[in-house]
Amino acid sequence: MPGHLLGGIEAGGTKFVLAVGPAPDCITARHTIPTRTPEATLAEAAAWFAAQGGVAALGIGSFGPVELDRASPQWGFITATPKAGWSHCDLAGALGRALGGVPVGFDTDVNAAALAEYAQSDARGGSLAYLTIGTGIGGGLVLDGRPVHGIAHPEIGHIYPRRHPDDAGFAGNCPVHGDCLEGLASGPAIIARWGASLSELLQDHAAHAIIADYIAQCCHTLFASVAVGEVVIGGGVAQTPGLIARVAQRAAELDAGYLPGGTRHTIRAPRLGLDSGITGALMLAAEAAAGA
Amino acid sequence: MPGHLLGGIEAGGTKFVLAVGPAPDCITARHTIPTRTPEATLAEAAAWFAAQGGVAALGIGSFGPVELDRASPQWGFITATPKAGWSHCDLAGALGRALGGVPVGFDTDVNAAALAEYAQSDARGGSLAYLTIGTGIGGGLVLDGRPVHGIAHPEIGHIYPRRHPDDAGFAGNCPVHGDCLEGLASGPAIIARWGASLSELLQDHAAHAIIADYIAQCCHTLFASVAVGEVVIGGGVAQTPGLIARVAQRAAELDAGYLPGGTRHTIRAPRLGLDSGITGALMLAAEAAAGA
Repeated sequence: MPGHLLGGIEAGGTKFVLAVGPAPDCITARHTIPTRTPEATLAEAAAWFAAQGGVAALGIGSFGPVELDRASPQWGFITATPKAGWSHCDLAGALGRALGGVPVGFDTDVNAAALAEYAQSDARGGSLAYLTIGTGIGGGLVLDGRPVHGIAHPEIGHIYPRRHPDDAGFAGNCPVHGDCLEGLASGPAIIARWGASLSELLQDHAAHAIIADYIAQCCHTLFASVAVGEVVIGGGVAQTPGLIARVAQRAAELDAGYLPGGTRHTIRAPRLGLDSGITGALMLAAEAAAGA
Repeated sequence: MPGHLLGGIEAGGTKFVLAVGPAPDCITARHTIPTRTPEATLAEAAAWFAAQGGVAALGIGSFGPVELDRASPQWGFITATPKAGWSHCDLAGALGRALGGVPVGFDTDVNAAALAEYAQSDARGGSLAYLTIGTGIGGGLVLDGRPVHGIAHPEIGHIYPRRHPDDAGFAGNCPVHGDCLEGLASGPAIIARWGASLSELLQDHAAHAIIADYIAQCCHTLFASVAVGEVVIGGGVAQTPGLIARVAQRAAELDAGYLPGGTRHTIRAPRLGLDSGITGALMLAAEAAAGA
């Protein structure tokens, strides 16, 4: 049964964060459930929204890959994922129906986070990238105030940074690409070669400069290829003390004062802390409600 | 004195290409002049347009860096360029006034070319990148049908590709970054280490695979970071026989079947041949005329 609040889901591979509120910047209730089978997870999510009195519209920021093409019959689906049972899951359709046929907004988790951080930003050139550096590495992009989909959606975790000279011995742990960015700088890649998370390694450990260099190369690539003004870096690895400052310093070295607008480049932590994704999901709900 | 035709300028560091026509896909007269001082060059361009009967609107695709922010008092200027005499030149303003106060459209040369190739494309996901690999390396981007400016404009020639193992001895010739993409794969960088252009080197010369690898890394970066569906590659180096096929093959190897939508990735030569930039400039003129 539809209700009066906005509903949001940050759909991840290990947990779903659920929230409701009268506006994206006002979360009045939230709940986290583990990601199990699609059937069990979506039923549990729908039951929680029903217990809140239902929602007027739902927004979902999802792990990928997802289908974002509104003209596709698979719009709102997770597509081919290695996560067992979740390939070709009709996330948006099933949840919209379970909640009484409410309008549903749908995008990647990182595009949702980028939208929310963009709303918090100084809107430099109307552009912002949101990177998450955690179990995996992903990126969302907002240009001219809208999330970028392109032919599908960005997967910037799979660019190839130049190898750091002090990191030559590690082959990378991306099962597809080996030493792409995710294979070098994600949480599991850090643990694979140093046996600890970046936060656990002493501040003078070489890992800090190495990981900062890889993330800085990604930021430089975004500055150079899309001319975003801001890169926001979230995720578990990004919470390592000092990391974002190291990334910003290294990115400035890589640019060497060349790029137009470079003096206005900003690399920062999320202003919304851990709430960028769920806030963005609620923004997708508000947009779906307005368009319904 | 305003006339009835659209006028276009592809403004380059060595030459200005001028054209007029009733529509962007119908060039009825064209003329090329050498790039001298701003005063001499702009006066010669304006005189040529006047001799064609004037124009109703002018579109300019310019070498950079340029100011694209409509809210800036420097909109339409070339900003700080190493090209002697051209820094802070009010290209759009001076030419618009010289032609009788006609509306002026203005963007980078590569964004203009991207717009024109986008109009020729199968519009995969509404997105296209145009790379020029010549004396320098630049890139334009169209997303959702519009050119991307971001905080200023893309300068993708200055990303850092991973070094090819057979090219370790070359330091790169970008005066700012050394071995960025432009420092490794531009025409002058090719001549600097092999003493000939890529077209002049035998097809079994290692340079072909090395240069294709660097350009393919750029394509992969665009596919991964912005999810463009098509990359169009123009410029003098790109005319080397076999190069674009090598780039496409290498980019597919780098993706390894991972990216969503990857089966629809296209890397191709410009459908408009050498006319992408000037056609895009006329499209900017048509847009300015419609908005006036």
